[in-house]
This record gives sequence, C-alpha cells and structure tokens, in this order.
Amino acid sequence: MKSISQSRLGILGGGQLGRMLIQETINYNIHVSVLDPDADAPCKNICDYFEVGSIGDYETVYNFGKYLDLITIEIEKVNIEALEQLEKEGVTVYPQPRIIRLIQDKGLQKQFFKENDIPTAAFQLFNTREQLIAAELPFPFIQKLRKDGYDGKGVKKIASEKDLEDAFEQPSLAESMVEFEKEIAVIVARNANGEMKTFPMVEMDFNPEANLVEFLISPSTYSFEIQQQAEEIAKNIASGLSMVGLLAVEMFLTKDHQILVNELAPRPHNSGHQTIEGNYTSQFGQHIRAIFNLPLGDTKAIANALMINLLGEANYEGEAVYEGLEEILEKEGVYVHLYGKKFTKPFRKMGHITVVDEDRERAIEKAKFIKDTIKVKA
Amino acid sequence: MKSISQSRLGILGGGQLGRMLIQETINYNIHVSVLDPDADAPCKNICDYFEVGSIGDYETVYNFGKYLDLITIEIEKVNIEALEQLEKEGVTVYPQPRIIRLIQDKGLQKQFFKENDIPTAAFQLFNTREQLIAAELPFPFIQKLRKDGYDGKGVKKIASEKDLEDAFEQPSLAESMVEFEKEIAVIVARNANGEMKTFPMVEMDFNPEANLVEFLISPSTYSFEIQQQAEEIAKNIASGLSMVGLLAVEMFLTKDHQILVNELAPRPHNSGHQTIEGNYTSQFGQHIRAIFNLPLGDTKAIANALMINLLGEANYEGEAVYEGLEEILEKEGVYVHLYGKKFTKPFRKMGHITVVDEDRERAIEKAKFIKDTIKVKA
Repeated sequence: MKSISQSRLGILGGGQLGRMLIQETINYNIHVSVLDPDADAPCKNICDYFEVGSIGDYETVYNFGKYLDLITIEIEKVNIEALEQLEKEGVTVYPQPRIIRLIQDKGLQKQFFKENDIPTAAFQLFNTREQLIAAELPFPFIQKLRKDGYDGKGVKKIASEKDLEDAFEQPSLAESMVEFEKEIAVIVARNANGEMKTFPMVEMDFNPEANLVEFLISPSTYSFEIQQQAEEIAKNIASGLSMVGLLAVEMFLTKDHQILVNELAPRPHNSGHQTIEGNYTSQFGQHIRAIFNLPLGDTKAIANALMINLLGEANYEGEAVYEGLEEILEKEGVYVHLYGKKFTKPFRKMGHITVVDEDRERAIEKAKFIKDTIKVKA
Repeated sequence: MKSISQSRLGILGGGQLGRMLIQETINYNIHVSVLDPDADAPCKNICDYFEVGSIGDYETVYNFGKYLDLITIEIEKVNIEALEQLEKEGVTVYPQPRIIRLIQDKGLQKQFFKENDIPTAAFQLFNTREQLIAAELPFPFIQKLRKDGYDGKGVKKIASEKDLEDAFEQPSLAESMVEFEKEIAVIVARNANGEMKTFPMVEMDFNPEANLVEFLISPSTYSFEIQQQAEEIAKNIASGLSMVGLLAVEMFLTKDHQILVNELAPRPHNSGHQTIEGNYTSQFGQHIRAIFNLPLGDTKAIANALMINLLGEANYEGEAVYEGLEEILEKEGVYVHLYGKKFTKPFRKMGHITVVDEDRERAIEKAKFIKDTIKVKA
C-alpha cells in the first residue's frame, strides 16, 4: 500500500460521518473522493473530489472506485458487487465487502452471532408475513426487516393478532422482547496487522416519554466486570470477522445484567461522537489509523463526556436556523458540531453537542440544559 | 451580525493556519471563502470558495471581500486599505485593520509598547542604514526590519563595525540584545463584548546548536507569579488595542526573570498548535468564538503537551515524502498534522506533531524520539 499522505481514499456516502472523518483526514494530507446521491451532501465542499451518484449502483460505484487506493464507507447500504470487483482489481476496501454484506442483512448478522457464541436475543427468520403468522409466536415480540432498516425504522413491536396484520411483508426476523436496563455500546478498531483497541463502554440514556436516545454517556459507571465483558464481546466479533476498520457494537444490558448484542455497524457511529473531545483518540482518527494499517491510538477517556443529538424540531421544515447556540456555549466544556445540512425536517439529525466535564453530575446537568435550550427550527 | 451558521467568512491567506481554522469552522456550518496567491495552497480543497489572487492587492482584496459578512486573516501581510474600505461598507473585519496596520510595522509595535507601559527591550527607529551607522550604537545589538520579516527573516545581529556594512538598508529598528533564559508566549482571545481569556503560558525550548525552536512545551512550569504576569501583559495589550480575535504575544523571560515583550501576531500562531489536543478549547476554536462574538471557551490544559515543528529536511527539494510516521504513531498520545503542501524545501514548515502525556518527562522523551524519527524528504 502507498504511504498515507500519498493515498487516494474514497468514501461511499457524504453525510455527517464522512464530514467528521474528513476533519481528520486533513491531518494526514489524504486525497479524499466522496460519492453521494445528494448534490448538497455535508461533505460536498470539504473533499478533494465530490461526485453525485448512487452508492447502490454497480456502475457508479465501480467507476468511482477504480482509480482509488482505498475505499471506506459511512453507510452500509452500498453496492457490494462493485466493491468485490474493485477488490479483485487491487483496490483495498475496508471494511471488507463480505463484512458489509453480512451486516446489511440483520438475519445474517443474527446467524453469525449464533454460530460464534455471541450472546444475542433468541430469533427466527421469515421470508414472508404469511410464514411469520403461521409460526404462531407468543406475543409480544419484535419484528425487524432483514434489510434497509436504520434509526429505528424497519422495527415493529408485535403485541397481538391485530398487530400481525400490519407486520412487514418483506424478509424479516422475529426476536424475543428484551427487558433491558440499559442500552450500551462499544466501538472496537482493528487494523490489518490484527491490532485491536476498544473505546470505553458507553451508556445510552433513554427519554421514556419519547422512546428516543436522549443522552449518550461516556464512560460507563457499570462495574469493571460488565465493561470488560462488553469490550471482550466487541473484540470477539471484530476478530471473528477479521475485519479492518471500526466496528460499533450496540448491546442490551438486561435487568439481570446479561449482555445481549443488538446490532453492528462497521464504521464510525453515533455512539462514538463524544470521542472527538472526550477521548485521547477520536473514533474518526482511529478509523483512519485502522484502515491505513497504522498503530491504533490511545482510546482512554479524558473526562466524562455526554453527547446530545441535535434533531430537527417537530413541526419545522425548511432552511435550518439554530436557536440557543450562544447560550449553550456559555457553559464550559461544550462543543458544537453542525452537520452542514441546509434544510431541517422533523427529527432529522442536524448536528450533535458534546459536554466534557470532570464532574459527572455537572455534565448531566449541562446536558439537560443544552437539551432544553438548543432548537433547530426553520 | 448574522448568526454564525448563516455567515459567509473570508480568510486572507490559505496556508496551514487557515487550514486548521477550517477544520473548526466545519463544526459551525460557516461558509468559508479563501484568498491566496498559490493555486495549490493548503486550504484549496477544503473551503466553500477558493480564489487565487494577491492578498496584498487592493482591488483583489476588495472584490474578494465585498459580498462577505466577516473577514479574518491568517497572515498580517495583507492590503489594509481594502480592508478599511470594506469595513466602511459594512463588512466586519477581525482583527481590525488598524491593528493589522500596527502589527505589520515592528516600529509602530514598539512605540505602542512604550506608550502603554508594556515592558519591552530598549529600541531606536531608523529610516536608513546611514542613520543607523550615524547613531553609533554600542555593539552588539539587533537590527530588525520594520516590515515583512517573518520566521527569523528580517533580523540581524550587529556585533561590529563590519556587520554594519551588511546591515539592512530599509527602515528598521535597533534593539538591545536581551540575555534571555527562555522564550515564552501567551495567546489571548478577546470578543466584541470585551470578554477575554488567555491560554496558559508556554515555553519554547531552543536547540542551541541550530538556534531554532525545537519544542514548544505547555503548560509552563515557571512560578504562578511569572505565569500570571505574562498573562496580564497579554490581556493588557489586547484590551489596550480593543482587539477582537486572537493575539499571540511572544516574550522573553530574562535571566533575572523580567518579562519583555518581543512581538505580536493578531491571529492563530505556531505557539498555540498544541492547544488542538492539549487544551479544552483549541486556539482555532477560540478564534472562531472570538470573531463571531460567542462566549469564549475554557482554555485549561488537559495534560502536558509538546509541539514539534515538522520542517523540510536540508538538502531535499521536491514532492514531499514523510518518513517515520508509523514509528511515531506507535507511541501513545502522538498526533500528526500535515499541512497539505505538495512540495518540500529545506526548513519549509510542512506540518507539526503534538505529544500529550500526563507525565512531563515522558512527554519530553517522546518529543525527542519524534524529532529524531520523522523526516520530510523528497
């Protein structure tokens, strides 16, 4: 492989993850090309070459990639066949296409967990709704589309015969309901030399009213044993896959403190945004080190860090206006990340805010204040 | 003024300081235009609009600036008259043109120090070499060009009658030799509301052989009194000037522990690069907060931070190749910043490396290893 500062990197997807990745590639003089269907994508003006095109189309991805040295992704829904062809022709692709293929399909993910003794909720696969109905599973259970679900889309709770009528038609999996105490996540990085490092385990705090992740808290205050177990699970998956790059592992911690893996993302992830200011190495810096086979960086936490997603307010659609920025920046240790999206719509991810504070309670107080103060309107 | 995320910012100069500033403007969705004479300048591909043109030319700067909301600089040698005209027409310019004018001229700087009781080495101004010779100053002394000196250029030591023959012809100042124990620096930020914050005082460690700054160390281990005094001097200058933006104040600490101000830079500065990873707010983030009149960020040090300038090796000129990157990244807390310059030449600033470590001695050991290991060749 060429040296990092002479490399041409391609990113499939030009959204906020690509944008934050580019803020780090700049440090290494990496030549960055981005492919995204949106002519106004967040990466548009900060990369060396930007192409508008479908990341799901064989010809588009193949032609975009054939002169590059290395390709990575910021979203899984990409054309795998083109990436496999590019790999055959000598272009390095990290994460490897076979891993993206596995992770694109929640059914294959679950089968991989089962075959590799990775703890996960019991499940069954179905090709049609009729098969699902015929199975007469005990209520309630969760139905998930095998493909194309994201950010809570593609998931339904089936609590009764009646809900079965509205169940998804497409290939899906049914999963037992998990009574969890906390959603947790670990991001692990692995380079081609096989070196692996995990970021400290983080906790997601839910707003019970809105059923949305409200805050992400790093590091976790659960026991060392639980944290170690979660990190071991993440490493086992990454080494089991022999993957190169970042792997975000979302998990449930059940009420009796068992860990069950929920799902995987083979790339930088929302659950790692707080690493930019909260850890010695950020997830974006670590992804670059991993895919260029550089020694991995120190993942230690600098202090408590809370991340708040900045979503478009309900009932506002149009050119985005950010209210409350000045007020939140008055607090110490508050960092703003806007994603360069011109238009807001209800619940669109428009940015995130990180709070870093040595005192955990004070960090939580600040995060609540931020949540109440900053609004994305139109 | 418009809100930050709707603002069009212009930067005069597209070098590494602009580049690192843009890595921060991305967090606020700021629309960034850059003017630089070099079509291959480090900012070229990471801004919204890049124009090739002279930052010293009235028409070029005026036309570049007239549709912008706010203009800042990353180098002082810009056309002041155009900036003054733009200011009259309602474009905000920070730092203010009158301050850039003052700082462009080391003679005016020294007079300002004198008039405002800012401690500085004794000096005299001369319009020609003949005047300088006629003054019969006691040897040795330092002659500095009033304008256009940078990075050690435009400075001569005059130790004898013979040296006088090679003295600068242009307007200059003569300054007593300062026997200093250490070069120190403080960066202060001030916003339009008058809020001010200083970064902790830093020390420059010289290599006596090469007479070049070898390492920058943050924070200083000098006494609280000395640090406080240096920070007070920086604040006095910034408030005396009513300036908006960053002001880097380079100072000498004499052998009897007096502080003498050497020179000023009204912008992000080499002596603040370690703040990117070493402090809760970076100098670049602080400059943005200051010029957009946002509350200033916490400048506290996270840990000991050392900065090593990455200069082109002597005897190499051509397309840059970086040797030793992998080796230095094996150490914990090492951060690489390459400046996106395609071509290296002897002693050209090609990047910098920062080491962050809780243990100061270990940080210094790592910095020495880095200095010996990484090389920019062609």
